[in-house]
Amino acid sequence: MVKVAILGYGVVGSGVAEILTGSGGDVRKKADELIGLKYILDLRSFPDSPLAEQFVKDFSIIEGDPEVNVVVETIGGVGAALDFTERALRAGKSVVTSNKELVATHGRRLLDLAAEHGAVYLFEASVGGGIPILRPLSDCMAANDILEICGILNGTANYIFTRMVQDGVPFEQALKGAQANGYAEQDPTADVEGHDTCRKLCILSSIAFGWHVLPEQVATQGITKITLEDEAYAAACGHRIKLLGRSIIQEDGSLCAYVEPHFVSVQDPLGGVEDVFNAIKVKGDATGDVMFYGRGAGRLPTASAVVADVIAAARKMERAGYRPWQANRPEGVRSPEQLESRWYVRLASGSFSGGQLLTRPGAAEGEGAYLTPPMSRQTLEAQLRDQKVLSVIRVLD
Amino acid sequence: MVKVAILGYGVVGSGVAEILTGSGGDVRKKADELIGLKYILDLRSFPDSPLAEQFVKDFSIIEGDPEVNVVVETIGGVGAALDFTERALRAGKSVVTSNKELVATHGRRLLDLAAEHGAVYLFEASVGGGIPILRPLSDCMAANDILEICGILNGTANYIFTRMVQDGVPFEQALKGAQANGYAEQDPTADVEGHDTCRKLCILSSIAFGWHVLPEQVATQGITKITLEDEAYAAACGHRIKLLGRSIIQEDGSLCAYVEPHFVSVQDPLGGVEDVFNAIKVKGDATGDVMFYGRGAGRLPTASAVVADVIAAARKMERAGYRPWQANRPEGVRSPEQLESRWYVRLASGSFSGGQLLTRPGAAEGEGAYLTPPMSRQTLEAQLRDQKVLSVIRVLD
Repeated sequence: MVKVAILGYGVVGSGVAEILTGSGGDVRKKADELIGLKYILDLRSFPDSPLAEQFVKDFSIIEGDPEVNVVVETIGGVGAALDFTERALRAGKSVVTSNKELVATHGRRLLDLAAEHGAVYLFEASVGGGIPILRPLSDCMAANDILEICGILNGTANYIFTRMVQDGVPFEQALKGAQANGYAEQDPTADVEGHDTCRKLCILSSIAFGWHVLPEQVATQGITKITLEDEAYAAACGHRIKLLGRSIIQEDGSLCAYVEPHFVSVQDPLGGVEDVFNAIKVKGDATGDVMFYGRGAGRLPTASAVVADVIAAARKMERAGYRPWQANRPEGVRSPEQLESRWYVRLASGSFSGGQLLTRPGAAEGEGAYLTPPMSRQTLEAQLRDQKVLSVIRVLD
Repeated sequence: MVKVAILGYGVVGSGVAEILTGSGGDVRKKADELIGLKYILDLRSFPDSPLAEQFVKDFSIIEGDPEVNVVVETIGGVGAALDFTERALRAGKSVVTSNKELVATHGRRLLDLAAEHGAVYLFEASVGGGIPILRPLSDCMAANDILEICGILNGTANYIFTRMVQDGVPFEQALKGAQANGYAEQDPTADVEGHDTCRKLCILSSIAFGWHVLPEQVATQGITKITLEDEAYAAACGHRIKLLGRSIIQEDGSLCAYVEPHFVSVQDPLGGVEDVFNAIKVKGDATGDVMFYGRGAGRLPTASAVVADVIAAARKMERAGYRPWQANRPEGVRSPEQLESRWYVRLASGSFSGGQLLTRPGAAEGEGAYLTPPMSRQTLEAQLRDQKVLSVIRVLD
């Protein structure tokens, strides 16, 4: 009998409890061993919950209970979550989490700590919610060298873009709508400034390339400056604007890793990804492009990914843990400054020599929008010097 | 040191040998243990191959060599492949295959045989080529009840449709082009009559629903009757024609499983899947729709999926084998006769009452094409009695 403790009874934690208890019959049927929920750690009291007896407020009860084999950490952040994760792993308990910030910043050390103590540290739910991505990347594509990862990793940002295009509302209003619908936090910074995408890209890159890529190494640009005018020009040339996290292996073995809005062709499978959906395209040297698509967030999708990891941990698949990550390479990540691509540029006046002119209904007098030939950002900026630039967005080619 | 024997030095088998030896450095790096190729079984001789010393013609050499832990079966069919697989498993050797016909027809017994002898039987490469789908479905979605599987599972059929639409060539000519390009066999029956899709659907369904679904239980319809006129009407209403394998769980626990061409909206992620690409949409009760996309065939994609299974087997992840399949349920599969959907109908003359009229340039005098309201095929056929029906295609709603 595998006994589970859940840390944090928030959105995901309570979803995990529901799957483990409410529809637990199915989960137990599918696991090799019976899985039982023994504790829920939360500072708050839930006297009316049917699970009231499971609640504790002191982590040392869980830490000291040898019956607990698997700890589910859904606290979030890098404070108590880090402390409890370390203590659980040191006690030989496997830890399963959806906490992308913790994995992105401390993943390597926690994977090593797990291995030292005969436990596993699993975090499928930290990227793409209920979309299976980390295990396929780690195991099923093991005979490939990964060449590139390119993904729509943040459902909130994608929902905002979809509302702007489909409802014709500007960014601020689309964001308010996302907040009203529960798709965006009251403090939406991590979503709209790209930090959330950056963390997920770091986790994907660390698994794909085998060494710990840190968030501060990844040039990250958000979506707050995207306007309805930009969306109109994108549509006019068969594109959508998407916030992408990209990580591309370079000839010298370094990574070009960054987060930026892109013009994406509607012909590209990523271009058709709408609303809160996520999609992650992985290019392997043998498989070519493979894409994983689904709801990137939400209570039950994320909780079901956590529970799948609990089942994996319960089946004692120590050998099925992720491979260890090698140390971070301080010089191993390049900015995309030298990465050549076409660009969308919008100018208050003037023109872009050699660019393909775009048009939109209702354009302001003198406004000019263009798709440029492929060039680096540096070259582009040199050409744009002395121009009144309203927007610059990279094209995914 | 894990020693591997490859049975059959054809397209996939030689790809596996190439990955295990040529670029073997990378594969060995990623596996826990060194993986070495010891034998290749083929009736032909390859005296000039750099691997000439590995070739044998007698399976009993492999069967009797206790050093061989993993056997790769890429012979195909259900003759020698079945015999050798059984003998390898009985000898306690794990078997990895891309042979969809063998898995679809004998998978349950071979999984049981593997379990009895402490081995694993793995077949990720049998569905979707290099796309990771069976392990994600089996492990990562383990906390879900699967509600539906719907996939474009045959790259040849999809390539033919794409050529018809993009090049305006009729079916026969598109098929010839596919053969000339190596995308279709000289005998294309299995691809164009839907048998290949049917086998893959059976494997997916058996993994998703936990009991062995057999090909003869699945109503299967091919693509040979699709015309350019049908493609023109599909385009006229924002659809593409795709050959889909579908398996939908019913309220009574039975499956509605079938293979048929469908009108698929270009808004649906499946509608944008072109050329030889495959895509498999899985609906879980917790995750909602999740989709897996990539090249469904090809030498290196398929071989890389085989090698990933070899690595999994080599890591002695006995517990990571697929769950056993329960026995086939003779009454467990329904035909889609009662499955309500909209329909595309094309009539030589006359009209369809209540249907949405479609138009195309150059339509023959009197020809009428319609999208009907949702109804079963039985109801539809009653309404079409006494009409001159040219085409009937189900709409994916």
